[in-house]
Amino acid sequence: MDRLIVVHHEFFEPELIGRITERAAELGFRVLAFDGRVPGEKEKGRDAVKDAEILYAFSPRMLRAGSEKLKWFCCMSAGVDLFTDPSVFPNPGVMLTNSNVYGPAIAEHVVMALLMMMRKMNAYGEIVRERKWTRNLPIDGIIENSFLIVGTGNLGTNIASRLKGMRAGRVIGVNRSGVFRGEENPFDAIRPIGELDGLLGEAGAVILAVPKLGDTTRIINADTIARMRDGAYLVNVGRGNAVDQAALIEALNGGKLAGAALDVFETEPVPPDDPIWDAKNILITPHVSGDTSLPYTRRANVERFLADLERYAKGEPLLGLVDPKRGY
Amino acid sequence: MDRLIVVHHEFFEPELIGRITERAAELGFRVLAFDGRVPGEKEKGRDAVKDAEILYAFSPRMLRAGSEKLKWFCCMSAGVDLFTDPSVFPNPGVMLTNSNVYGPAIAEHVVMALLMMMRKMNAYGEIVRERKWTRNLPIDGIIENSFLIVGTGNLGTNIASRLKGMRAGRVIGVNRSGVFRGEENPFDAIRPIGELDGLLGEAGAVILAVPKLGDTTRIINADTIARMRDGAYLVNVGRGNAVDQAALIEALNGGKLAGAALDVFETEPVPPDDPIWDAKNILITPHVSGDTSLPYTRRANVERFLADLERYAKGEPLLGLVDPKRGY
Repeated sequence: MDRLIVVHHEFFEPELIGRITERAAELGFRVLAFDGRVPGEKEKGRDAVKDAEILYAFSPRMLRAGSEKLKWFCCMSAGVDLFTDPSVFPNPGVMLTNSNVYGPAIAEHVVMALLMMMRKMNAYGEIVRERKWTRNLPIDGIIENSFLIVGTGNLGTNIASRLKGMRAGRVIGVNRSGVFRGEENPFDAIRPIGELDGLLGEAGAVILAVPKLGDTTRIINADTIARMRDGAYLVNVGRGNAVDQAALIEALNGGKLAGAALDVFETEPVPPDDPIWDAKNILITPHVSGDTSLPYTRRANVERFLADLERYAKGEPLLGLVDPKRGY
Repeated sequence: MDRLIVVHHEFFEPELIGRITERAAELGFRVLAFDGRVPGEKEKGRDAVKDAEILYAFSPRMLRAGSEKLKWFCCMSAGVDLFTDPSVFPNPGVMLTNSNVYGPAIAEHVVMALLMMMRKMNAYGEIVRERKWTRNLPIDGIIENSFLIVGTGNLGTNIASRLKGMRAGRVIGVNRSGVFRGEENPFDAIRPIGELDGLLGEAGAVILAVPKLGDTTRIINADTIARMRDGAYLVNVGRGNAVDQAALIEALNGGKLAGAALDVFETEPVPPDDPIWDAKNILITPHVSGDTSLPYTRRANVERFLADLERYAKGEPLLGLVDPKRGY
């Protein structure tokens, strides 16, 4: 009767699988790893889950084959909105943890997206494609600029840290409590979400880094956009439900906002006929800001799992524990 | 017999001209300012130079009208390679200062350009233009990556500071002496240029931030590219002479380098039939990294001039003094 860990992944190098296997063995577990990119592996993995005590994978779909022995699902992603329906779990006692390791990759995306908008890279891209030499388009910068970040978790904290490292001016975070609960606090101030309306006008850019929750739906809408500064920028790297896309398109085309960088959308994949593609000064990326192909992210994902595996083996509370009903 | 300062600019707001005029008056100078964007102003400005003691402008062409009273030319740009020919000066005693205030704007460009290359934004741009939803292109990041910066002046120092602020790994600077002469040193180490060959292979990205000098010509050529890491990135924000473009094109098209971001070129404007436009994984911008349209840059330019004006009025040595023959 060995204790089985099933790993279903799409991006780990053999070296990382080796690290998992080795550490698990020390703690008394056997590991079966399946690479979802290899044909047939996904099905084999799903089959193996029926004997697993621990499953380390992205999707709750891995659970459907039945897995009554399961005690812990470590989700490889940060957002666990696919798990809010309790029926995805084969038994009510399964613990769910998430992997809050995407902050660094996403923060780099945010800095890049802000600078691409501020430095008119859409326009310069067209100029260069036509082999022209047009210069002196008016640009903005991060230095001395002010930022409002909605969400102060792993994403928001990493974004704030990078902006301050880029010599940003004031960086304000917004969350439910108005209190910072992380380790090192890079924000100049944290305010409760109830004060959002009054804070929107103070920022050169508003960055959304919140999970998908009922009360994060359409935080950015016609009313809140009207409170933003003329010529401000919007970035969304959380979940697509946070932005009323129709209102955003109007604000971009009408010139109220100078640009918006969206990595997440109301509907994904974005349908080919969606008007968001044609909005003025939009920077669209296909939900890749937290791309797991970044070596740091892969390694941190495994290290986070192994840290919790050690705690699990000792019966200690898990670091990444989330409440599927609450959604984070 | 009043003492005249002529300002010939293309980007100062009235508020900044007001600050110059006010401070100059306190120090006993009269200011005539000409906005080169307004038709006829350039000619009027050039005419006024003949009575000027101080000229604050970009180009040595402003000197041609004859200006025997001139004692100080404050150049608004950082690079003074247009001034190496002593005959541009109407008399041999003219002091030349430059404006080392472009570091922050250029450092933001470098961070953006690196991330655009590392995060495959050329490819994602095409995917998005075709309204596709292709994901998971392999990406790199700044976090934990290693960088080699050639040039440790205002540009190189600002670039190093931002990279460290973005949680880069090792950031090495290269200069003539191997000694850091600035104020706060953000580099992990400074090495003399003689060690360049051995350092090139250690960096995920090499960034060129050197002025145009005889011994900076084609620092990056077929030999030095061969010493770079396979899949490394190159960024040039100094002067175009530092890169052998033909060798770079070969390295990009052959896959030795993963990308190159050039803001400066052997010939500017880049001719429409130049093969650099078509190089694989190239990110071209038309010499805009230090764009003066960034509000920070404009203000810092004026503040730097006023700091030296105060020193000039007191007979103290100027901060920005450069040797036109040496070129920096």
